[in-house]
Amino acid sequence: MTMPTYRYRIQIEYDGTPFHGWQRQENLPTVQASIEDALKALSGKKTLVEGAGRTDTGVHATGQIGHFDLDKFFPACRLKDALNFYLKGKGVVILGVQEAAPDFHARFSAVSRTYRYDIVNRRTPLALDHLRAWHVIPKLDVEQMQKAAYTFVGNHDFSAFRSADCQGKSPLKTLLQFDLKQEDEKITAIIKARSFLHNQVRIMMGTLKKIGEGKWTDQDLVRILKSGDRTLAGPTAPPHGLYLIDVGYE
Amino acid sequence: MTMPTYRYRIQIEYDGTPFHGWQRQENLPTVQASIEDALKALSGKKTLVEGAGRTDTGVHATGQIGHFDLDKFFPACRLKDALNFYLKGKGVVILGVQEAAPDFHARFSAVSRTYRYDIVNRRTPLALDHLRAWHVIPKLDVEQMQKAAYTFVGNHDFSAFRSADCQGKSPLKTLLQFDLKQEDEKITAIIKARSFLHNQVRIMMGTLKKIGEGKWTDQDLVRILKSGDRTLAGPTAPPHGLYLIDVGYE
Repeated sequence: MTMPTYRYRIQIEYDGTPFHGWQRQENLPTVQASIEDALKALSGKKTLVEGAGRTDTGVHATGQIGHFDLDKFFPACRLKDALNFYLKGKGVVILGVQEAAPDFHARFSAVSRTYRYDIVNRRTPLALDHLRAWHVIPKLDVEQMQKAAYTFVGNHDFSAFRSADCQGKSPLKTLLQFDLKQEDEKITAIIKARSFLHNQVRIMMGTLKKIGEGKWTDQDLVRILKSGDRTLAGPTAPPHGLYLIDVGYE
Repeated sequence: MTMPTYRYRIQIEYDGTPFHGWQRQENLPTVQASIEDALKALSGKKTLVEGAGRTDTGVHATGQIGHFDLDKFFPACRLKDALNFYLKGKGVVILGVQEAAPDFHARFSAVSRTYRYDIVNRRTPLALDHLRAWHVIPKLDVEQMQKAAYTFVGNHDFSAFRSADCQGKSPLKTLLQFDLKQEDEKITAIIKARSFLHNQVRIMMGTLKKIGEGKWTDQDLVRILKSGDRTLAGPTAPPHGLYLIDVGYE
């Protein structure tokens, strides 16, 4: 006889600054460990949380999705309040809790991930957006960046835009959206795909910055993408401009 | 013979969190002292900075204006970079430096101050906007708040909306603008006047919250304003939702 379990889906917001990323690591503060600690405090049992996106150190989220199982039933809204109580002051909050089907999986059931990347484009250092946006000094031509960014949309081999330690089996990914907009000194990119390679968004942003500075053209970007050569792409943009804002399910 | 002096006007952005407000206080970190320390490091001389608004502990700014005199001429852009160098990592940046007329005074020449007040209206605690916005849990009716806020616009005796330690000579102030807007869970107020009483914006916001919750009506607000009685108005809203965003000069 197996015990019945109850599966829950949670939406998570966090400030990535104090964390060594999403994923549990021995003796380091991570988002996953913080939520698992809160679940242990709540349920008295070790409870594993699976997340849709394994964000890196310093990366933020407003729409990370996770799931976990409990062997005792809790009403969703009580569970949310209790988790937020145990997470108080940690920089992680649970925005929503839903009961989920037993076969729901935060990572494997996801059909899309959407990231936002924020740049503040000005000469002066950042006081209020420090560690919340990428501070880029050279004046960027956002129109050129947008023109080039459309090259990424569609199905491509993104080998030139994956980190050396990327564990993804295939470099083929389908980008659904890559939109940039500018409001005064703030530049915001919205990037959506079924899934991404490790550091893909940050390497794409680091490459687009070169184009925005006028150092490379959109034709260079076509060549870099075709080459599959990571050394030809731009540097990896810093993590603190990146936000996981949405995960889609069927 | 007096030495020639050169007056400069600066625009300042700061995160109010680490500071005990704008104004210099012995042995406490303040924005004014940080800039004066930077000026001393730069010029080798004690240099006083005057600010347009003496923001309280925790209040932020994107458009604070200050002025100071140096007895040596510096090109404005060099001065800006040098000040930002000495302010590095302190949560204060100089957004702009201009040469100013000898009779320019950041505080006394100002003809308007504009503040923004940010609220995040949701049940869940804040991870990303913690100490950057007022977290208000009860659902607010922004339409009712806006209707009431118009009561403040114009010339009024704001005695009911000043802190006990306000040193302003007259409680009469002319409010030029009080606009609220809502975007999802974020509520933003823009409040403009020639000048304000101490804590005036925060007490107005604390009072409007009561109206947004449905506890008071716009007619109550009219009575409170007429009464001149601070004890009848709402509580002082927290400082960390408040931003000094603009100072106007003729």
